[in-house]
Amino acid sequence: MVKKPLILITNDDGYEADGYRLLLKLMKPLADVVAISTLESTSAMGHAVTMSMPLRLNKITDEPGFTEYISNGTPADNIKMGKHLLLDRMPDLVVTGINHGSNAAINIIYSGTMAAALEAAMDGIPAIGFSLAEYGKHPDFSHVDEFVLRIVKKVLNEGLPKGIALNVNFPKKTDEPVKGIKTARQANAVWKETYEERMDPYGQKYYWMTGVFLDGDKRVDTDEKVMADNYVAVVPAQYDFTAKELLNKLTF
Amino acid sequence: MVKKPLILITNDDGYEADGYRLLLKLMKPLADVVAISTLESTSAMGHAVTMSMPLRLNKITDEPGFTEYISNGTPADNIKMGKHLLLDRMPDLVVTGINHGSNAAINIIYSGTMAAALEAAMDGIPAIGFSLAEYGKHPDFSHVDEFVLRIVKKVLNEGLPKGIALNVNFPKKTDEPVKGIKTARQANAVWKETYEERMDPYGQKYYWMTGVFLDGDKRVDTDEKVMADNYVAVVPAQYDFTAKELLNKLTF
Repeated sequence: MVKKPLILITNDDGYEADGYRLLLKLMKPLADVVAISTLESTSAMGHAVTMSMPLRLNKITDEPGFTEYISNGTPADNIKMGKHLLLDRMPDLVVTGINHGSNAAINIIYSGTMAAALEAAMDGIPAIGFSLAEYGKHPDFSHVDEFVLRIVKKVLNEGLPKGIALNVNFPKKTDEPVKGIKTARQANAVWKETYEERMDPYGQKYYWMTGVFLDGDKRVDTDEKVMADNYVAVVPAQYDFTAKELLNKLTF
Repeated sequence: MVKKPLILITNDDGYEADGYRLLLKLMKPLADVVAISTLESTSAMGHAVTMSMPLRLNKITDEPGFTEYISNGTPADNIKMGKHLLLDRMPDLVVTGINHGSNAAINIIYSGTMAAALEAAMDGIPAIGFSLAEYGKHPDFSHVDEFVLRIVKKVLNEGLPKGIALNVNFPKKTDEPVKGIKTARQANAVWKETYEERMDPYGQKYYWMTGVFLDGDKRVDTDEKVMADNYVAVVPAQYDFTAKELLNKLTF
């Protein structure tokens, strides 16, 4: 009997999120699945990890081939705990998401979904973060299944270069069918925040962060452009921040 | 009269931290300073931002040339609020830290100090994150002043390429004088976590994350190597995660 691969899964929208439940459903026939999420959303946690408070884990499902936990950690914590606490062997693949909301362009840096995928890549585990460019509690995921499966099967079979996590973003569902998958680069597009000032019942000011997304990147092969053209965007992501072109130019 | 430059400062060890107070003291003679920190440590927050709860700001000092706030946000929030809520003009420079603990190698991805600096770089503001490779409440900062001033003055005068934040790490103080400043690349060195299991007074298990740092990077120009040789390491950091060498190789 061929041993099934082992897939570790987390997300940052909480364990009940539609995108997460869909990802679990799609992965179960392919592999033994261990899933760790949180009770509530941990969106925009970036690569936060938990050192100032104790971590907790509750097993909520224990079936043959499928184990599910709820933790009080961040998405990066969940992958760390999966790797170094829960699993007795390294997973063959880590998949995260499917995030409710795009993690294209600069969103990758704020994204718990992609932090978790990069956390796996650091240990040489192939990793894929999936996100859909639609926010809200129940976005339309009906166009993603075949692409999730195609990408996951390819990575299970062929692996990924060491230290790479794929940042896969699906365009929002439209009446037109998705045209296919394109490899893309991270768009240099960022948020410009605005702060909405309010008064609490006790007369104290507080602020809600909102913002507009500004894409001034003219290159044609960015994740934003590819998604606008109704393709699935796949950015091969790595975790070296070094601006290598400056290494021999900068002196102090 | 020449207008003084405007420097925006934050950190992730809380507003009372030695490294932050030292940085404020060093910056005040050079510029008008606006400082935003938090009541307590927000270490290891990565690039987390706050969308699920209201943000608060309290002004605790308002002197000519020096304004200080305490917020309930993350380091990235603090720079966002500085840029888009508090200041009526863009700062000439953002400096963050001085962090208690190294942000060299992979630590950059977990670091609130560097997230704040990169948040400034996204808006084209020159930014420098300072960190000292010694943890604890009162590390020895006695060797850093001249280097902080040299780097800050150079960046105030010459700027930085757009989108770049410097990740400056000081070696721990030894009996030998620091040899100088070297530009370096981010070492490919990561943490391997261990989880210490304990029992709470109510009979429930919990875990503390700890770990060992593994540096298998043999290159001689990494931040880790440079610091081990008692130089100040300066990594020019950027926020594009794209693994560009894979762009034309990866198909699905």
